Amino acid sequence: MATTTHALKQRLLTPGPTQVPPEVLREMALPIIHHRTKQFRAIFAEVSERLQRVCRTAQPVLTITGSGTTAFEAAQVSLAKPGSRVLTVAGGKFGERWQDVYDAYAKSLDLVENIRINVPWGEGPDPAAIEQALKDHPDISVVTVVHSETSTATAGDVQRIAGIVRKTDAILIVDGITAVGALPVEMDGWGVDVLVTGSQKALMLPPGLGFVGLGERAVQRLEEVTAGGCYNLDLRRWLKSWKRNDVPFTPPVNLIRGQRVALEMIENEGLKNVWKRTSTLARGVRAAFKALGLKLISTSPSDSVTGACYPQGIDDSAFRSALRDKHGIHIAGGQDGRGASWKGRIFRISHMGYVDAEDTRAALVAIETELIAAGMKVEAGTAVRVFEQSV
Amino acid sequence: MATTTHALKQRLLTPGPTQVPPEVLREMALPIIHHRTKQFRAIFAEVSERLQRVCRTAQPVLTITGSGTTAFEAAQVSLAKPGSRVLTVAGGKFGERWQDVYDAYAKSLDLVENIRINVPWGEGPDPAAIEQALKDHPDISVVTVVHSETSTATAGDVQRIAGIVRKTDAILIVDGITAVGALPVEMDGWGVDVLVTGSQKALMLPPGLGFVGLGERAVQRLEEVTAGGCYNLDLRRWLKSWKRNDVPFTPPVNLIRGQRVALEMIENEGLKNVWKRTSTLARGVRAAFKALGLKLISTSPSDSVTGACYPQGIDDSAFRSALRDKHGIHIAGGQDGRGASWKGRIFRISHMGYVDAEDTRAALVAIETELIAAGMKVEAGTAVRVFEQSV
Repeated sequence: MATTTHALKQRLLTPGPTQVPPEVLREMALPIIHHRTKQFRAIFAEVSERLQRVCRTAQPVLTITGSGTTAFEAAQVSLAKPGSRVLTVAGGKFGERWQDVYDAYAKSLDLVENIRINVPWGEGPDPAAIEQALKDHPDISVVTVVHSETSTATAGDVQRIAGIVRKTDAILIVDGITAVGALPVEMDGWGVDVLVTGSQKALMLPPGLGFVGLGERAVQRLEEVTAGGCYNLDLRRWLKSWKRNDVPFTPPVNLIRGQRVALEMIENEGLKNVWKRTSTLARGVRAAFKALGLKLISTSPSDSVTGACYPQGIDDSAFRSALRDKHGIHIAGGQDGRGASWKGRIFRISHMGYVDAEDTRAALVAIETELIAAGMKVEAGTAVRVFEQSV
Repeated sequence: MATTTHALKQRLLTPGPTQVPPEVLREMALPIIHHRTKQFRAIFAEVSERLQRVCRTAQPVLTITGSGTTAFEAAQVSLAKPGSRVLTVAGGKFGERWQDVYDAYAKSLDLVENIRINVPWGEGPDPAAIEQALKDHPDISVVTVVHSETSTATAGDVQRIAGIVRKTDAILIVDGITAVGALPVEMDGWGVDVLVTGSQKALMLPPGLGFVGLGERAVQRLEEVTAGGCYNLDLRRWLKSWKRNDVPFTPPVNLIRGQRVALEMIENEGLKNVWKRTSTLARGVRAAFKALGLKLISTSPSDSVTGACYPQGIDDSAFRSALRDKHGIHIAGGQDGRGASWKGRIFRISHMGYVDAEDTRAALVAIETELIAAGMKVEAGTAVRVFEQSV
């Protein structure tokens, strides 16, 4: 059934940006304040403390101006030992990006080698291969892994990988950009050295902030090495300011105020309840997709986003346009990378942040309706029925 | 006279962040949209075109996620020729920062020398010294200058400097962070190769966006050199996306929407009217300060910000606290750098962006009142009287 409000009501179920609660938007619309004031410092301190609780760490969590990529690159360039090897683990577009970043810094960091471990897209990182590489090359100074690879909707076993890396001198940098606030992450409990995330995913803010949690070993490494050439991205600068409850460069004041409210909402709901809501939605959608006859894109699905392959004969552009224009439902398509070309071949729906069963059912109805319209043989109502049975 | 609203009404006259119009805050509070959509592309295209008109250029103006420092650093690292000299001109904290940035990249860019030309704080850059350095060292690949040095409230003669640099193969990168939208800037007319600015000054947005205008010679240089190691800050990446009306990494959607409205407001007022308003306010404040017996900090004052030395016996912290707590007026103190230590010794008031004669008079009354309260001998009413006579 198609009804319309005065304009078609829009529902964003893309894996970033995600929906932003009205409470957060309202806070961002308050008159701007200066960042060198008591008022801002109190807000910044609260954001830092809430981030620590959401990352499950007692260690500093830095707030960096930029995207999640900015924050991850800052960690990469600030923590690699000059003249060492780095180990970059990928099975999707974002893991590949972190491989590219170290290639860009190969000269300024005097890297001996950027050891790449690539698994097929849709598979999680292989802990045994990481362990072997660390044995073969004791001079690996940094390992990068992706906790939730957004491009392939795949989760990695970060707890196990952290246990392996922890036995060596290497620093583990975890891409938690679509993990923190969505999947269970225990930064201190698992011994994760560096946990990077961004504002525009499960943390319910518009894009513009990146976050870097720094474990004790990472803080120590920062003191030992000189960052490979960057100025703005040199984390020593950010850590020094953070200790004074400050930032080195004019920060996005309004976004930080919004982040305070979004984090408060997460903590009021309860972080574990948020994790549970996310996993429940993901479980329901996976079951619904299977019932529709869709093949998941991941053998190790993340709960923050679910991806499915298009059946034969479904055109990505026409399908997602119909979802958007007829139903107001926004989902993501596929991405291309070195390991695979998934543009036009898959679609992805997010379970992160300010999204609930109602939004998700709306998306499932729209997806089912348009798959049937495109010729798929499936009984109308299947997706929602199976979703309800599974959640 | 002290009156109060339910809480003291706050007026921000700091040189960044500056006040943000309610129309812009409202736009930023709209529900978030995805950046890979026609709707966002239309907004982004409008922002790019308006930026071109405000920078007075037909060339690309890139929108970068980050602070003004992020954008300037990106230009520095992307445009220097490996194995060359760079010339960095400073007379204040921000000019010194661009000197530090090239020091950080000395190795990755294989810089032969970072030639620093420093004038005393409060003086504008010396075009003759720049001309001489370019003659002495034909391998200088980049020159950095500051158009409006915020720390010293000083303007540089960018038109003349651009004419000098233009005769050589060096690329001129201009720090227009507190110039664009405040002072007359003619990027194409003056032959400025690279013009960098930020959102949180005269462009009336909260912090979080930096902008880089790229002249033809700069675009050509980008094609010739490899950026010295950075990934996110490699302008080639941003330019390539810009040509497709896109960005390489998830952008701060809400800030960009707000920037569209702020730029629309500037163009509706008329850019030249904005320049005139800014210079009128600056002229009035300089006259009022002189009438109060205050010494300006600059021999070449910028119209975007005015700075004055504290008279003997005025305590910076007590003075600015009184302005803030009794009058709701926020102005800036001094900054420390290599060339001077101005913390506690000066104060600065902004004329940029969403600020008018009413705000400025309110600040002048507060400043005069608190100077008298601190023991200065001056007739009450002087500042506003002289301001009115001068504007």
